[in-house]
Amino acid sequence: MRDIVEIGLGKTARRGYHLDDVALTASRRTRGSKDVSIAWQIDAHQFDLPLVAAPSDAVVSPATAREVDRLGGLAVLNGEGLWARYPDPEPLFDQIRSDGAPDDLMRRLYAEPVRPELVAQHINDLNKSGARVAVRLSPQHTLAHAQAIVDAGVDILVIQGTVVSAEHVAMGREALNLKTFIADLDIPVIVGGCANYQTALHLMRTGAAGIIVGYGAYRGSTTPRMLGIDVPMATAIADAAAARRDYLDETGGRYVHIVAHGDISTGGDIAKAVACGADAVMLGEPLALAAETPGGGTYWDATVSHPKLPRSELLRLVADGDRIPLTEVLLGPTADPSGARNLFGGLRRAMAKCGYSNVKEFQRAELTLAHRG
Amino acid sequence: MRDIVEIGLGKTARRGYHLDDVALTASRRTRGSKDVSIAWQIDAHQFDLPLVAAPSDAVVSPATAREVDRLGGLAVLNGEGLWARYPDPEPLFDQIRSDGAPDDLMRRLYAEPVRPELVAQHINDLNKSGARVAVRLSPQHTLAHAQAIVDAGVDILVIQGTVVSAEHVAMGREALNLKTFIADLDIPVIVGGCANYQTALHLMRTGAAGIIVGYGAYRGSTTPRMLGIDVPMATAIADAAAARRDYLDETGGRYVHIVAHGDISTGGDIAKAVACGADAVMLGEPLALAAETPGGGTYWDATVSHPKLPRSELLRLVADGDRIPLTEVLLGPTADPSGARNLFGGLRRAMAKCGYSNVKEFQRAELTLAHRG
Amino acid sequence: MRDIVEIGLGKTARRGYHLDDVALTASRRTRGSKDVSIAWQIDAHQFDLPLVAAPSDAVVSPATAREVDRLGGLAVLNGEGLWARYPDPEPLFDQIRSDGAPDDLMRRLYAEPVRPELVAQHINDLNKSGARVAVRLSPQHTLAHAQAIVDAGVDILVIQGTVVSAEHVAMGREALNLKTFIADLDIPVIVGGCANYQTALHLMRTGAAGIIVGYGAYRGSTTPRMLGIDVPMATAIADAAAARRDYLDETGGRYVHIVAHGDISTGGDIAKAVACGADAVMLGEPLALAAETPGGGTYWDATVSHPKLPRSELLRLVADGDRIPLTEVLLGPTADPSGARNLFGGLRRAMAKCGYSNVKEFQRAELTLAHRG
Amino acid sequence: MRDIVEIGLGKTARRGYHLDDVALTASRRTRGSKDVSIAWQIDAHQFDLPLVAAPSDAVVSPATAREVDRLGGLAVLNGEGLWARYPDPEPLFDQIRSDGAPDDLMRRLYAEPVRPELVAQHINDLNKSGARVAVRLSPQHTLAHAQAIVDAGVDILVIQGTVVSAEHVAMGREALNLKTFIADLDIPVIVGGCANYQTALHLMRTGAAGIIVGYGAYRGSTTPRMLGIDVPMATAIADAAAARRDYLDETGGRYVHIVAHGDISTGGDIAKAVACGADAVMLGEPLALAAETPGGGTYWDATVSHPKLPRSELLRLVADGDRIPLTEVLLGPTADPSGARNLFGGLRRAMAKCGYSNVKEFQRAELTLAHRG
Repeated sequence: MRDIVEIGLGKTARRGYHLDDVALTASRRTRGSKDVSIAWQIDAHQFDLPLVAAPSDAVVSPATAREVDRLGGLAVLNGEGLWARYPDPEPLFDQIRSDGAPDDLMRRLYAEPVRPELVAQHINDLNKSGARVAVRLSPQHTLAHAQAIVDAGVDILVIQGTVVSAEHVAMGREALNLKTFIADLDIPVIVGGCANYQTALHLMRTGAAGIIVGYGAYRGSTTPRMLGIDVPMATAIADAAAARRDYLDETGGRYVHIVAHGDISTGGDIAKAVACGADAVMLGEPLALAAETPGGGTYWDATVSHPKLPRSELLRLVADGDRIPLTEVLLGPTADPSGARNLFGGLRRAMAKCGYSNVKEFQRAELTLAHRG
Repeated sequence: MRDIVEIGLGKTARRGYHLDDVALTASRRTRGSKDVSIAWQIDAHQFDLPLVAAPSDAVVSPATAREVDRLGGLAVLNGEGLWARYPDPEPLFDQIRSDGAPDDLMRRLYAEPVRPELVAQHINDLNKSGARVAVRLSPQHTLAHAQAIVDAGVDILVIQGTVVSAEHVAMGREALNLKTFIADLDIPVIVGGCANYQTALHLMRTGAAGIIVGYGAYRGSTTPRMLGIDVPMATAIADAAAARRDYLDETGGRYVHIVAHGDISTGGDIAKAVACGADAVMLGEPLALAAETPGGGTYWDATVSHPKLPRSELLRLVADGDRIPLTEVLLGPTADPSGARNLFGGLRRAMAKCGYSNVKEFQRAELTLAHRG
Repeated sequence: MRDIVEIGLGKTARRGYHLDDVALTASRRTRGSKDVSIAWQIDAHQFDLPLVAAPSDAVVSPATAREVDRLGGLAVLNGEGLWARYPDPEPLFDQIRSDGAPDDLMRRLYAEPVRPELVAQHINDLNKSGARVAVRLSPQHTLAHAQAIVDAGVDILVIQGTVVSAEHVAMGREALNLKTFIADLDIPVIVGGCANYQTALHLMRTGAAGIIVGYGAYRGSTTPRMLGIDVPMATAIADAAAARRDYLDETGGRYVHIVAHGDISTGGDIAKAVACGADAVMLGEPLALAAETPGGGTYWDATVSHPKLPRSELLRLVADGDRIPLTEVLLGPTADPSGARNLFGGLRRAMAKCGYSNVKEFQRAELTLAHRG
Repeated sequence: MRDIVEIGLGKTARRGYHLDDVALTASRRTRGSKDVSIAWQIDAHQFDLPLVAAPSDAVVSPATAREVDRLGGLAVLNGEGLWARYPDPEPLFDQIRSDGAPDDLMRRLYAEPVRPELVAQHINDLNKSGARVAVRLSPQHTLAHAQAIVDAGVDILVIQGTVVSAEHVAMGREALNLKTFIADLDIPVIVGGCANYQTALHLMRTGAAGIIVGYGAYRGSTTPRMLGIDVPMATAIADAAAARRDYLDETGGRYVHIVAHGDISTGGDIAKAVACGADAVMLGEPLALAAETPGGGTYWDATVSHPKLPRSELLRLVADGDRIPLTEVLLGPTADPSGARNLFGGLRRAMAKCGYSNVKEFQRAELTLAHRG
């Protein structure tokens, strides 16, 4: 059953499955969709939706963070993004949208130094409004910037890179020791991305409240072409869920949440990610459709501005004027059957048709492997 | 041989196969196509063709129902469709065909209340003309509308939703108990859709004369994207056929018919559905080519008008003027080799070339798995 | 190792492979291409090339038959084609090439009765010119027309339909008994198509000198869509080769030739068909590139004109003026690397690079399964 | 686990995997990219990069060879290419770039006789400049031309054809005996291409310092269509690595390098080739993007000019003016995320993210089989 293939003499590869490769199977019982709960709780924080808005400048501004909170999710502001580098980044977005060759522009814009006091101010403002907020830092800059962010009262800290391990080797430089770092913090930390059982288990052992599975692959990601690295999300989520079970056993009850991030564009993708074992999903690109997001219908992630080796491209997804309210994107109702709207209504109905009543139970849902050609 | 795959540690998926994945294998004997019977009998009703016309307003009007009956099949009128909501829906079809953004229109048109007396009148008219007719209700509205329809003299009742189970959980509301409901009826009931052995067996135990396998996937279906649910039809039909065998054994001889519904566009698809185990096929989209169908060359199904989460889109398949008589679509002759015409001539010839003489025998035909890239 | 898959409970399918799915593997030894023989002998007939030109009116006229013979192959004239129905079919080809909707035209042209005396005259002429010729009849009309063709001195008779079995059941009509028919003939018979071990073995037992594997699938074939029947050629050829081995054993030495027909467009396809076990290939569509063929750059096969259920379409492959001499198509040299020219030079070089010196040995060549996406 | 499939009764094929079928899996540890070495050493020659520039006239001129050497790689000049046939081939490149039908032109240009003294002069010039250089000869012409090239002081000799075996059978003509030929030379020889364990082992036993795996498949290659031969590179590289291990054991320590050649377009492809077992990669098509290469943005390989059976086509990849410095192609930095730039920066970062510190270790990296549809 374990899917190990010999690709050549003495060299094996494990078969991995993308979310596109699987589908949900409705079996035996059905349920009214009103009798289904899609709520999520991590640490002391309760959310109506198992939604984490990705720390992309294109989709999370301080204002969007407030709106995401209002609708029941958790938004992550990029602690090294434009709002962390410029007192007023709004005009930069116009420039990004109108620029003909945005790759170079991105590199220039993100070359401006990070000013932690700007992030602290945004946290303060959000706290005052009553909205919860998370901030993302890269592993490389966590030691430098985390203190200011924590002091400002952030609710959840997100330490996130394309690939994050519990053991980073950096000769002759100080490396972040996740375990001691997290132990010293009073707030929950979500850390990732990772892509397999071993890394997931090690990240859980750092004391994180949640781990991110995947690197946030979207249609503009070129990590597979630039590095040869790819993450088949169905397999990676299921592996991390196995690590969660084993870690729960080894700790006698510590439950670490799995946040799936990558290749999730539709309500169906969300449902499948949960059915593979995710507790919540981190969404980036799908939120670009919402009129409230700052990118004006474009999407990019943090790798777009790498000074030497960018690994994604800015996507123009929808004309600014064709965007719709975030509430329709997340909760509907909608008249559009494309899968991109009423994302969590899709999750709810999928659970109802498969007969499950909450997200945790739905992780046991039956799957079929049957890609349409 | 059983195709269970570990997609991640501790999470399995069963491999499923679409009709596109399989092909018929001609073996040993051949037969003259005139020596082949493609007749179908369910309960006391005999049909020249194993054809059920799907309860889509785009293809079944009271007039089409008469024509389908004349040509040897069974048409299902949608008991919650436009003919059930408007005394004269004809002008609405012009509007649908000419409207630029039909999604919203559909929602509005189907917001009109159902008037069971309209359906009853259509049933009366069809009865008078000597044509048999079936009517479809959704599980949610069966309790409300079935009595009027049965009283009007419908021949067969079809209870159909995207996913129908024998055990629907609806807290605090009255749910349809299929078993007691069917026991109280004097006419045969066809119920579905379902997608696997367990649900099929449970639906058979409700006393249904036939079950529908599949949700009627057509090129405009977005259920996989909206909900993550998909039905690989070759696998689902074969599973239901296994349930039919086991139910036949457990009841000492009650034969429940399997009506395959979804991903069937050509004569070859019909042949493959039967070879997987179907007794008959429910066709929607392929009938839109027929000049007699009301949609004027468009197709949609009941999910298009869902008020919050539509799961299909109206397809414009063929210009009105390019349509052809229903008899050519179903029975030929034709000069068009595309697979869309002379659908049941295709079935007949496939059976002849594989050496089978009736539909029941043809369910044993040999299959090959060999998708063309 | 045997590739049987359970597609649903209790229903299996065997996995089949197309020629596109496999590739040759060069191993250990190489050889000069001049040290390779690609000659073919069937019964008393020796050919420089393992080539049978398919009985399509688009590629084999009496004149082409002469040219194919001159270049070392065997051409098959369609004994029920245009040359069998019209004293001078040349003007019809102009009509076919210029007609906008050729499907109906084809049906009309092929409605003209067959006149065996016309075929007899073509055979006489070819005999006089010293060229060998084969004629194809359908199983349905073999009894009616074969005698005249044999009497005229045809070298090889080809009895060919989409699916031909050794046991055709036709109630109340006289069916062709291949075994007694072939036993009464003094010339070799090639019969087919077939698609698996069982049918191949049964056809070998009729006394045929060769059998055809496949139904001649080309880019215009719609048999899979019309009937659901498809033939994965790599598997079908290998199965027939197994039947050839077993029949050789059961008869103590009768070797029946396998002629592969379908999905062969390039020199690489020919090499792969032989490596799967074929003794020769029947080519249709690839010959349309040759200026000498009558179709003027179009191709169709016998199923195009079926009066009720045509299963292929006329393809316009190349502009008449862009065609090249048959000798370049078959033997090169060429400056075109597309695979469509110097077909048998490709076979010869493939054999050389894999280290084989004749066609029979090359049937043992190693294959890899590795489709390019 | 061994992936042998029965494609038909008694005929098997081994499943092979392309580089596109696999992806790297980041596991457990990560590493700073500055702490990674991508150096390569073969025989006494040390290189900063595991790069061999392919002997295509489109990418390696004497001038490019110098630049490749300067940037840390090894360039191979085609000893039977335009620089070996013409004293000044520069004007021919203009002709190639502007010609409308280059196939015939190529054949004519390469019909000019090879003049070994021209190659000798280029070697002298490169030696004087301090740049190392390799020269490629085909197996057919090695005996005729090698002496002059060796005498001129070439650093490494490359004997390369589409398929090269250690045992070439050529009746009545003198064949190259690689073993005795290499034994008599004082410089290292790299030989290939080969595609499986057996041929790789035999080539290693000839005394070669390195072997080439693959035939240099690029987007313009038609060898699969012309000959039916294809090389799934992931499998072929891994097989050759197994031969390297066995040969190392059988010789008590002779390490033969594996140079992967074919289907490598991006930094990710390079990383995957190494992870399958390659010591270095031979790059052709990807270098056409560099302004220093002679083809002006086009690419072709030696098979394009075959007088009878060409097996590749000249590709126009990029407009001359859109090309970039070779240093950006190989080493970055770049703002382009397509995968085609900063190829070895991609390798370095892939190794860092997977936690490996040198090329040899990285050959053990974990792979996933998960093609994106």
